[in-house]
Order: sequence, then C-alpha cells, then structure tokens
Amino acid sequence: MEFLTLLPPDEARALLMSHLSSGTADSESLDSFLALGRVTAEDILAPHPLPEFARTSVDGYAVRASDTFGASESLPAYLTLVGEIPMGAPADLTLESGQCALIHTGGMLPANADAVVMLEYTQTINREERKEREEIQKRNLSDFARFAVGSEIEIFRPVAVGENVINIGEDVRTGQVVISRGTSLREAEIGGLMALGITQVRVARKPRVGLISSGDEVVEPSQPSRPGQVRDVNAYTLSALVTRAGGEPLRYGIIRDDFSALQAMAQKALTECDVIIITAGSSASTRDMTADVIRTLGAPGVLVHGINTRPGKPTILGAANGKAVIGLPGNPVSALVNGYLFVVPVIEKLLGLTPRPRPTVMARLTVNLASQAGREDWWPVRLLPPSPVIGRGAGGEGYNAEPIFGKSNLIFTLASADGLLRIHPDATGLSAGEIVEVMLL
Amino acid sequence: MEFLTLLPPDEARALLMSHLSSGTADSESLDSFLALGRVTAEDILAPHPLPEFARTSVDGYAVRASDTFGASESLPAYLTLVGEIPMGAPADLTLESGQCALIHTGGMLPANADAVVMLEYTQTINREERKEREEIQKRNLSDFARFAVGSEIEIFRPVAVGENVINIGEDVRTGQVVISRGTSLREAEIGGLMALGITQVRVARKPRVGLISSGDEVVEPSQPSRPGQVRDVNAYTLSALVTRAGGEPLRYGIIRDDFSALQAMAQKALTECDVIIITAGSSASTRDMTADVIRTLGAPGVLVHGINTRPGKPTILGAANGKAVIGLPGNPVSALVNGYLFVVPVIEKLLGLTPRPRPTVMARLTVNLASQAGREDWWPVRLLPPSPVIGRGAGGEGYNAEPIFGKSNLIFTLASADGLLRIHPDATGLSAGEIVEVMLL
Repeated sequence: MEFLTLLPPDEARALLMSHLSSGTADSESLDSFLALGRVTAEDILAPHPLPEFARTSVDGYAVRASDTFGASESLPAYLTLVGEIPMGAPADLTLESGQCALIHTGGMLPANADAVVMLEYTQTINREERKEREEIQKRNLSDFARFAVGSEIEIFRPVAVGENVINIGEDVRTGQVVISRGTSLREAEIGGLMALGITQVRVARKPRVGLISSGDEVVEPSQPSRPGQVRDVNAYTLSALVTRAGGEPLRYGIIRDDFSALQAMAQKALTECDVIIITAGSSASTRDMTADVIRTLGAPGVLVHGINTRPGKPTILGAANGKAVIGLPGNPVSALVNGYLFVVPVIEKLLGLTPRPRPTVMARLTVNLASQAGREDWWPVRLLPPSPVIGRGAGGEGYNAEPIFGKSNLIFTLASADGLLRIHPDATGLSAGEIVEVMLL
Repeated sequence: MEFLTLLPPDEARALLMSHLSSGTADSESLDSFLALGRVTAEDILAPHPLPEFARTSVDGYAVRASDTFGASESLPAYLTLVGEIPMGAPADLTLESGQCALIHTGGMLPANADAVVMLEYTQTINREERKEREEIQKRNLSDFARFAVGSEIEIFRPVAVGENVINIGEDVRTGQVVISRGTSLREAEIGGLMALGITQVRVARKPRVGLISSGDEVVEPSQPSRPGQVRDVNAYTLSALVTRAGGEPLRYGIIRDDFSALQAMAQKALTECDVIIITAGSSASTRDMTADVIRTLGAPGVLVHGINTRPGKPTILGAANGKAVIGLPGNPVSALVNGYLFVVPVIEKLLGLTPRPRPTVMARLTVNLASQAGREDWWPVRLLPPSPVIGRGAGGEGYNAEPIFGKSNLIFTLASADGLLRIHPDATGLSAGEIVEVMLL
C-alpha cells in the first residue's frame, strides 16, 4: 500500500514522455481566422513575396534618388510633379529624370522611381498654391492631383536609393517558411496567413482526453450531496485544464469503487481517446485500484507510482499502446496541480507544440517556507501589489508573493491563488525576501 | 494633417476610460462547466459549508482523542476496532470510550469521534493477522472490516482533538463570498462552483466589438491581390485579439476611402456593438477621414488624435454615447500593438474584470536600445533560452531578450516575436545587459 520509491517529477515526466507515440498522427484543415490557439501541423511556406510590389512607407514624393543628390535647404533640387499614385492600383506613369509623383503611405512605386522623399522635406514653389494644396489634400486627394500636376516641387534633402521604400520580399520571400510546424497560432500569425492569402490552415487535431472519476463518495455536481458524499470537482477542473491546453475533454462520468466497472470504462475510454485520466477516490485503496486497472490496459502499464512532489505524491503515470494513462489523486488540489505538471505536457507533446517561454511573474516572498530536500513543492500564492514605499523592483512589477496556508485539499485555496510557487527539489526551503518565480494559474 | 500634441499612452487611455459607460450592463446565465475564461457578473455566495461534514484527511482510525493521550511506542494505547466507515455514507456506529473505527481519506467521522490516528502509527496486536489484513485491505476493504472487527489496535502516538480532520466549513462557510464579481473563471473557480453544486453561473455578456477596415488598397484575404493592393490583415488580427480578451468580434468588411460610406458603416456598427474599431488605410489623409467620421458619431467624439508611442503614433481614441470608438493605423503591426494597449483594456472594463497580474517574462536585453524621451516604445523581441554558461538568473528563467529590428509594418516581424518590450516614456533607452520585463504575445 505504501510506495517503494518516489521519482522526482522531472524524471517521472520524462519517463512518461518516452513511452508516448511521438507527435499527433492526425491533423485537420481549418479556416485560418478560426485557428487562434491551434497548432500548425506542417510548415507554412509563403506562396508569394511580401510585399508583392515596392511600396512607400511614408507620405511624400516618389523620385529617382539620383535627382535629389546634393539637395539642401539652401540649394534645393527642383522636380516636376507629374501625377499622383492611386492607392490600390499601379501607377500609369513612368518617372523621367527631373520628375516626381505624389505618393501615399502604402502606395506602389511608379516605374523608374527608387526612393521617396518625405512630404516634410519638400515645398511647392508657389506658396499660395501650396497652402491651397494642403487644404485640398486634406479633403480629397484626387482633386489635388488634377490641380497640382505640373507644379515644381522643391526638395530640401537628398534620399538614397531605397530610402522610405519597402522592397518586394522584404517581409518574406517566396517559398520561405513563414510559420513552422508546431507553432501555436497567435494574433500575429493569423495576420501573416491573411497577408499571404492563406485562408485555410492545417492544424493538429485536438487530443481527446478521457476523464474518469472514481470513488463511492463522489456524486455529480448537479446532485444534492448527502452526508459522506462530495460532488465531482476533478472532472470539471480537468476539463477546463484540458481545454486551455488545447485538448478536447471527454467526460466518462463517475465509476464506483469496483475493479471491473472501472476497468471496463477505462478500456472504452482508451479506445476512444488519446489520453485517459482516472481520478481516484481519496483513499489509498482506490488509488491502488487505479494502478491495477492501468496494468490491465496494455503495455507497459504503470511506469511511475508515486512522485516526490507536494501536492501529488500518489500520482500514477502509465502508458498503454503508446497512449498516456494517468491516475491523479482524488484530492481536487492535488489533481489540478498534477494536471498542470503532467497532463498539460502530454497534450502539448501530442499537439507537436514547440514550447514558448512560460508566462510567470517574479515576486518577493513574504515569509520563510520550509521544504523537504528531494521533494518538489508547489505552493499556492497570492500576488499582492507592490508596496508604495518599496516601489517597483528592477524591471519587475515588484509583487509580493504570499503563500496560502491551509489544508491542501480545499479547492477554494487554489481559487484564491494567483499562481503556484515552485520549491526546487534541491532546496530545503525559501527565505522571506527572496525573489521567486510564480507560475500564473 | 500633423498632430498638434501627442498624449502619453497612460494619459490617453485614462481619458478614454473616463468617457465609457462603467461596467457592462448585460449579463447572461451559463452552464458553469462552459464558463472557463468568462467573467462573473455578480458575487457568488456559498449555499452551504464546505466540507458539509467532518472528514478525515488521512487513512487511519477514527478515535476519541482523549483515548490516545499519553500513548507512545513503549506504552501504546489499546483500542477496540468496532467497524469501518463506508465511503459516501454516514457511519452507522457511535464511538464509545476505548473504541476506534477504520476510516479512509475523505470518510465522514462517526459520532463521538474527534480525531484520526494515521495508519502508520498503529498496529493490530496479532502480527500474523495484521499481515493478512494488509493483503486483504489492498484488495477489498469491506472484507477487511468483516474480518477484523473486534481486533485490538495498538496506537503509538497521541492525537489532539481535530487532528487529521477537516471540519465543517473549514474551506468555506455558508453565505461566504467564494467568487467575487469581476473574476475571470479559471480551472479552480469552476471546480469550486461544482463543489458547491452551482452548475449555472451569471457572467458578463461578451462585449461586441465591431471591426471596420478602410482603404482603397485593401482587399479580402480570399482575393488575389493585384499590384498596389494588400490583403486585409487588421480585421483578423484584431478579431483574434478581441476573442482572446473575452469579447466577440463582428467584422463589417472593407470600406473604400469614401467619407459617406465609412460614416454610414460606422453608424451601423455603433448601433450594433459596444465598441467600434476603424483601421484606416495607411495614408495620413485616410486617418484624418477616420477622425472626421468619429466626430459625426456622437459626443464627445475624438478625445485623442495622436499618442506618443511607437508604433502607433496616429492612433485615434474617441467615444460616442458612452461607447469607445478607436481609430487604429492601417499598418498591421501598429494596429495590433495599439490593440493590446487600448482595445484590450476597454474590453476588460466592459467585462467588469478585476485585473490579475499580467504574465510577463524577465529577460536580459542583448543590445542597447535608444528611445526618444517622452515616447513609449514597444519593441518586438525574441526570447532566447538561457546560455548554458550563465545558467539561470536569480529565480528567473534567464532568457535573453533580442529585439527584432526591421521596418515596423512587417507583420511577420511580430509573428516571429515572443513578446513586446516596453521602454518607459521617461527613459531615453535601455542598455545591453539590463534585466527587462517582456509582455508575452
């Protein structure tokens, strides 16, 4: 009934990972605009360059750079305005030497132009005309072009070839991998797909995670709880966890403490899902039953029974036919914390996700925390705003991290926490005043 | 055409917020298990205590604590086993002095019991019997109880009243506010709701954010782009941003650079939405048109035209009839960065969201970055894993933050970034080696 050896959590996780089928086999095609948070199943290549044409990055005059060389406030270059570049269409003009064309940010450079002079470094010769031009320009650009063509423009600064121009392919080149396989799509990636006209994207199918609750004392949340009974919390906290990690939770309900019933349901879930999670009843004997069930599901069965972490010591990691089978403690806090530690990484592996830096918050610990050497502790903490006296730390928010003391099986302890503080297995504790890293919940 | 004054971003944001109707008027009722990420519209009170009955937090023997006082290895207390507490039901027994009952983690204390002795500090008198008991207990608990009732149990350690017991209401008391209004629901809160049998929850309606793209050069992503044209990126990056912030995006399509058409569409969106965002074409004149349109929509109209931030200087903040109307630059990077800075806070205000600490990553800047005093700069940065030589910083991941240089209107610049680095308006730059805070994208 007691565990012989408790594995360190990192080692336990690595052992589990080594027994899983690598990556996800399946992928699906999706409208790109619906793909926020989904993970690409293949490298995405640019079908054409971006931009597709040389454009200006400023409002000004498209010129031949050589026409401006040597221009200064005291000795301006004089160019003849030959037209205005329309937005959204190629110019129907070609610059000859000594000519320029009015162009607006994003506009396509006309033939022979190789640079753009910003409006602020120019002036029309006739000052009266210039004032009028500015008025008209504010209202209606095309009127201006009709009006001003033929004006002389003074250029007060020289521009180099390519100045204020975004060249073809400067953002991406044809055939360039713009988004690698395994990328979780954020706002910017979706924008990039749209810029390239890629309106469908192939993403990893969401791993299906089967959730089985067990325990004679556990009832559905919609039921009134009688003396001795508790409502099922774990199926729902873990559903939310799976959803947030990019998986699809499937709930298989509550099974009584009966080996055959649990075994049958686990077998069914294993067939239908990519991962199964059994949350045991709270007693040691039901946890042992979970381990026994996992042993029947397929090779290699139980890999780790007991992990040197708090909360979560009784967590069971197993695998059957390349699929992860995880037994979590019935205690809702242990189940959820160990869900972050072991279920999320499994989902991410199945998604083929390339890890990104994890969001954390640096904070100053308010009290001493003792820890047993060799054990990894995860403390729920509240993050309190920086003291107005101490102010912001060097580059940090200057939060204070206040551990929440209380029995570990109280779900509202975790609900009142902003994050989890890790005490490394090598440490025997942390001291008040230390700067610690808090994983946000 | 040029901006007279550029407001600091914090001041601009505060001015916008002061003109919005406070909080969201509407709320809706939702199944609690679907409410991940939604924001509570009212305080949630516990309808009953948690736990609802005194339970044990360990496997062991329920006792009257006074029967164990003075017990030690050399001088154990002797108690008569009178039965086993079933899981999920009240015990049908009452402890008399000198008696104990086998109880499993989570089990309900029997009448007269006030503490639990852990199994490891006990022994049955007959060692043969004990061994057999352990075997049986592993397999089937109820067999054990039948078998062992009447045994004498040796207790080697005393327990205090309440030891290893979770009392009624120790997690939450009846009527206690367990989740405050304005809380974004995470895994733990959903678990807490389930524990209390609260299967429906009242949450803020998702604010509807109308998105209008303008610009003669802008075409739908599904269309082939002709020379001079660009595909609409902003409607989709901002849709994703709005979704992630907890709002509901509504896209109103692409409007040509025509005052009346833009005015009519903005008016329609204002009627149907809680917030509207107009992304201008890239030229200065179309941005001015956006401001002119905002002025026609209602009081007070344009509040801020030009913000001292890079990217994003041409951003327009306005309000009409208590609703935010925001004009973002056509440049996709500016639009998205300014979306994080100004659109997300508006959505959070409408949701009535109580802010949580923002996830960030501390990192070491790899190069010097210059900045203009008074201007707030947001640099896209890549976070590189810690150098194996330097190792982890004090409590931090030890990432290096490498700014991505490049013209600011290239969407793939942002797609290749892990986060944004802020240079405070008071700073004239940052030095290589400084520890900086990176907002993850």
